[in-house]
Amino acid sequence: MTNTQVTHVQIDNYGPWTVTPEPRREVDLQTLQSRLYADLSQLVGNRGGYVFFSRFDNMVAVTNGLTVDDHALIQESVGNRYPVTMSLSVATGTTPAEALGTATEQLQEAGSAQDKSRREILRGRAIEEEYRTGEDLQIAHFDVVNATGKYTDELNEFDTFIEIEQGYAELMRYMRQAYDSLSFFVGGDNIIAVCSAMDAEDYRDAVAHVSDAVDVELQVGVGRGAVAHEAGMAAKHALEECRATGEEVHVDWSTTDAEPPA
Amino acid sequence: MTNTQVTHVQIDNYGPWTVTPEPRREVDLQTLQSRLYADLSQLVGNRGGYVFFSRFDNMVAVTNGLTVDDHALIQESVGNRYPVTMSLSVATGTTPAEALGTATEQLQEAGSAQDKSRREILRGRAIEEEYRTGEDLQIAHFDVVNATGKYTDELNEFDTFIEIEQGYAELMRYMRQAYDSLSFFVGGDNIIAVCSAMDAEDYRDAVAHVSDAVDVELQVGVGRGAVAHEAGMAAKHALEECRATGEEVHVDWSTTDAEPPA
Amino acid sequence: MTNTQVTHVQIDNYGPWTVTPEPRREVDLQTLQSRLYADLSQLVGNRGGYVFFSRFDNMVAVTNGLTVDDHALIQESVGNRYPVTMSLSVATGTTPAEALGTATEQLQEAGSAQDKSRREILRGRAIEEEYRTGEDLQIAHFDVVNATGKYTDELNEFDTFIEIEQGYAELMRYMRQAYDSLSFFVGGDNIIAVCSAMDAEDYRDAVAHVSDAVDVELQVGVGRGAVAHEAGMAAKHALEECRATGEEVHVDWSTTDAEPPA
Amino acid sequence: MTNTQVTHVQIDNYGPWTVTPEPRREVDLQTLQSRLYADLSQLVGNRGGYVFFSRFDNMVAVTNGLTVDDHALIQESVGNRYPVTMSLSVATGTTPAEALGTATEQLQEAGSAQDKSRREILRGRAIEEEYRTGEDLQIAHFDVVNATGKYTDELNEFDTFIEIEQGYAELMRYMRQAYDSLSFFVGGDNIIAVCSAMDAEDYRDAVAHVSDAVDVELQVGVGRGAVAHEAGMAAKHALEECRATGEEVHVDWSTTDAEPPA
Repeated sequence: MTNTQVTHVQIDNYGPWTVTPEPRREVDLQTLQSRLYADLSQLVGNRGGYVFFSRFDNMVAVTNGLTVDDHALIQESVGNRYPVTMSLSVATGTTPAEALGTATEQLQEAGSAQDKSRREILRGRAIEEEYRTGEDLQIAHFDVVNATGKYTDELNEFDTFIEIEQGYAELMRYMRQAYDSLSFFVGGDNIIAVCSAMDAEDYRDAVAHVSDAVDVELQVGVGRGAVAHEAGMAAKHALEECRATGEEVHVDWSTTDAEPPA
Repeated sequence: MTNTQVTHVQIDNYGPWTVTPEPRREVDLQTLQSRLYADLSQLVGNRGGYVFFSRFDNMVAVTNGLTVDDHALIQESVGNRYPVTMSLSVATGTTPAEALGTATEQLQEAGSAQDKSRREILRGRAIEEEYRTGEDLQIAHFDVVNATGKYTDELNEFDTFIEIEQGYAELMRYMRQAYDSLSFFVGGDNIIAVCSAMDAEDYRDAVAHVSDAVDVELQVGVGRGAVAHEAGMAAKHALEECRATGEEVHVDWSTTDAEPPA
Repeated sequence: MTNTQVTHVQIDNYGPWTVTPEPRREVDLQTLQSRLYADLSQLVGNRGGYVFFSRFDNMVAVTNGLTVDDHALIQESVGNRYPVTMSLSVATGTTPAEALGTATEQLQEAGSAQDKSRREILRGRAIEEEYRTGEDLQIAHFDVVNATGKYTDELNEFDTFIEIEQGYAELMRYMRQAYDSLSFFVGGDNIIAVCSAMDAEDYRDAVAHVSDAVDVELQVGVGRGAVAHEAGMAAKHALEECRATGEEVHVDWSTTDAEPPA
Repeated sequence: MTNTQVTHVQIDNYGPWTVTPEPRREVDLQTLQSRLYADLSQLVGNRGGYVFFSRFDNMVAVTNGLTVDDHALIQESVGNRYPVTMSLSVATGTTPAEALGTATEQLQEAGSAQDKSRREILRGRAIEEEYRTGEDLQIAHFDVVNATGKYTDELNEFDTFIEIEQGYAELMRYMRQAYDSLSFFVGGDNIIAVCSAMDAEDYRDAVAHVSDAVDVELQVGVGRGAVAHEAGMAAKHALEECRATGEEVHVDWSTTDAEPPA
């Protein structure tokens, strides 16, 4: 069983803002979005969490180890430094999809994403310290087998990108439907998934599914931990094993039982 | 006919760097990548160009109006401020796909993306001033019809993301294969495409294809210009027309014939 | 008595780097320095601490509440994202000047600021949790009385700047020599000082000294706390009192005894 | 004779914003200010100009080579990405002090720095292309002789900072009063001055004045150019000569007559 704490991050009324009073320069919007994401990565990441950019105006964070007060501070800091504000909704579940479902619902109950008067909502609860364990999170780090040799150095960049993108689109849908797990493209040929209690066989199934469906070959390292950084770093090391040995799936079930970072 | 100038941006030897001497913290990599993209957006954007993050370690820029010297300055500035360097390859073609094909080839000829000694390559040529016109670029701005009402306010955020992502994956592949056009997800429910000389009927075909294939309904505004900002801004205004009138495709063939920004 | 924990931040071998292989573009150096400072402000600030830019290549931070592990994480994150690395030295003392003296000594013992092989030093110890109190820090927030009306809206910007600068240069020297307190210009007409156990009379003396020496009239709010943010926020509120009432010095000796942020 | 184009950058109504509805977190203000400065450094710097942070809420830029349209674009970009806006006033003069005097006056005529309704002012004129020459700008780069050996590696960091600061406070005042030149601390032990048509003897006088007044020994390299980057880079190279030879003042009167960057 996993116990994933997920935060749904939503920029308040962002769509309308981008075209008011008339469409804003695209490069400024891109700069704003990617810097906000970078800031959240640092603010959440320095407490052991992960943020995924997903749609940029809506982001998904894995926040085991962060309290609601931590969220409030991050929300205030963004409000002080950006022309837009953001709402945060925190929830927990035995699968990441379930946790996110609750988080999104809490936000939807507070109003529409394009409601002018709904600003800086902060809803939900963090896992009580006493219920946290070193196995709360399971994270998988996928990449494409020999992406540089097979694609980057051979095809034009867009055709490489098409391959990666088709692989990602298939994996993210399948992992969600079959395993209630949330997969995010993180650049290059890398995909990081926040997973339910999948076992090695499940990962082999996911990799096989993508290979069959869109002919993109993945490998994956899997780790566990009390916070995203811990599980994610174990997954990275496990993926290094795949790269070294040619294994398709490498899982590292050891846990440190280390206290999560303060 | 279009005359798109495309730049392939590639971080030098990035994959190996991210795991040397051992895997680096994911949140730092995410911060680095998204800030580099934000910086490039500003540097290129303040000369009228567009950059798309695509895979982050490989990015695609539309650089009509930028000289090779401009590229050299941007390359130097990044080299001065980041722990990684980047290579740039510039090319032109009658379709965006053709231009990118040439740009990528020039880079591949200089060495592998993971070649330790291949650093800060700068290849290619910009369009001579005298051959530039106000119709060199055609840009299309797509979004999903009623995304907030149909998805964001109704589904959990990941399921919304799946819909957007499937729509994007289908569109980017089809636009490439049928029209030699390059489409990029830019956040929210927005996709910006740098296009060949497509007409309104072609756009209707692309929208219908995505609707048939993955049941995601798109609308699109299209504009032209001498630089990306000009064409892109016309496309944004055209998309506002779609939003106001319910049109599926709105093209704005007027051109300003304005001088590109210095 | 105060119990200030100070961190001396030093970019490793920075001077030589800025001119190797030849002088780097000044605007890139300025961008690098100010962004590094901004990042540290967030990383330290989100744990309740303050960083002052002072000379940019050498910065002073007030880090009560941050452990040595927190410092290590910040150091690693900067090393992952910048072309330069930084050394950190932490120390405590009954006055801020004494604490910084120890911190700097620890760094000097590790090698010269321009030693090529001295990189990412991390020295010193944080205050043990059990010895921390809600009165460990005393922070004063000074500004210039009616700076906008008297200077900004009247003189050319450089002459205004001269006035502010002369006031700062005098205050920072006097506060150091008379009170072992460290004063930092933080923009506008604001100076924030990390102080020894000064009382209201001492502050009146400092304000009078600056007025006599360089004819710049200051007012000051003073607060206390377990961490810099707490003491600094109390000082800001106290300064608002001065602005409202015309008081020259307003001290707020109440303490929250709140637990420092985790 | 010099022909310096100066831009006075002023954040609109910033003081009141920082305390409304109550004082904002200092670390967020510091982050906002330093990132805005970093952005301006890039935006202005990529067109060959320099920006100095001076008071952060009021900055001074040397903008030879930038048109009023360039200024408008920078102003719009900042307005799109920050919670504050800024006003810009451009002016020219035979001395930098005169130019800034005009620029500030234009801004003051538009309203107070703390006028709630005065936003995004853009005033003034750029030098017409036909009147620009390769000698329009004279820039001096000062640093402290053997600062690392004499101060950084010997004193505690604040006492080092006091020395640098006293040297700067004296130089900036003297250069303004005796030579109508504007000097800015840029980090470390470096000061960059935008100068009137001073000759080598004048620089020797300034260095001697600082040495007599506050016992801080400076050296200085001086260069000329059509834009700040050009003059500043020549000054940096000239300063390298001082470091190599022990000269106190090194001037490089050669000019490239190169066209300013587009």
